[in-house]
Amino acid sequence: MIPNDPVEHLIALLSRLPGLGRRSARRAVLKMLMDPADKMLPLAEALHAAAEAVRPCETCGNLDTTSPCHICTDTHRDRKLVCVVEGVADLWALERAHAHRGTYHVLGGLLSALGGTGPDDLSITPLLRRIESDGIEEVILALPATVDGATTNHYLTDRLKPTGATITRLAQGVPIGGALDVLDDGTLAAAFKARRPL
Amino acid sequence: MIPNDPVEHLIALLSRLPGLGRRSARRAVLKMLMDPADKMLPLAEALHAAAEAVRPCETCGNLDTTSPCHICTDTHRDRKLVCVVEGVADLWALERAHAHRGTYHVLGGLLSALGGTGPDDLSITPLLRRIESDGIEEVILALPATVDGATTNHYLTDRLKPTGATITRLAQGVPIGGALDVLDDGTLAAAFKARRPL
Repeated sequence: MIPNDPVEHLIALLSRLPGLGRRSARRAVLKMLMDPADKMLPLAEALHAAAEAVRPCETCGNLDTTSPCHICTDTHRDRKLVCVVEGVADLWALERAHAHRGTYHVLGGLLSALGGTGPDDLSITPLLRRIESDGIEEVILALPATVDGATTNHYLTDRLKPTGATITRLAQGVPIGGALDVLDDGTLAAAFKARRPL
Repeated sequence: MIPNDPVEHLIALLSRLPGLGRRSARRAVLKMLMDPADKMLPLAEALHAAAEAVRPCETCGNLDTTSPCHICTDTHRDRKLVCVVEGVADLWALERAHAHRGTYHVLGGLLSALGGTGPDDLSITPLLRRIESDGIEEVILALPATVDGATTNHYLTDRLKPTGATITRLAQGVPIGGALDVLDDGTLAAAFKARRPL
């Protein structure tokens, strides 16, 4: 390899990001090096600024420049309606879809026997405390439709039942715009079973 | 969108890199935000360091921390043998392949009637000067096998002929490990025409 260390170091760091391999990291670095003042320094500044400014919301676990975050402090949102998600990525995805008019709660993971994640590793006690103190009426479990997601759904349902809040989960079925013949069998069977009258 | 500006700004900058779309930039930023001190600040530092340290080599146009670059100053390299490439990415690719034991010359582009790139936009006069001053014996044109590459090959051949240096170009044919039935017709026809006795 070419022994100019700052470049190799940068490529190595960039290629650790999801979605970037060594090859694409190298291309990206080369493109930036063509115009460092316009492409590299602003990115370095932006990384610095984001690292300085962004922190987890002490209420819901969202990442924002303020804590509590702008969702938790938004007075137009229904605080009786909380949506439980695995991570911040899911929260952002639901926000982009304008799917939810309440607040969120980031679990920070899923129960996983294999991964060694137990209830104490997740933000469950703070969720119970919020349900109590805010008088939350409905908890929407928006966890992934995986084995760990289902396990966590079951566990949370049991833990949350005594609070008296309604517990719901996202509907499962055929994705909008999805052709039937390319869907996996599990989704197809679940959608068939959960069919609804028109 | 979620109005935390430093994050959106960072996603916008990252998604301008080749190989990263908005979606993957968002994923990368989220992953970094999980651990800013370990993931974002080092990257910011590395970008800064590279932008500060790296400059184009005044001799060949390579990007390196020194000028002349480590290839131009390497006494083990044959200075009578120069390989002409379109850009630094091609130079690095040839270096990774250990294909060339001489020096390089980065043109900085290709002649293109459509793109409006003329001979004066490329590093041709410095190349002529190097051929003269270093007594270069062979110029290897390692330009892409495209229309613009072929145009530039022809133009350079005409310009370099008076120097007396031997002018060669890379062989074209079937890639190593390439199956014939998936190759494009142009490559197949060129490889057939340029067949060699065993």
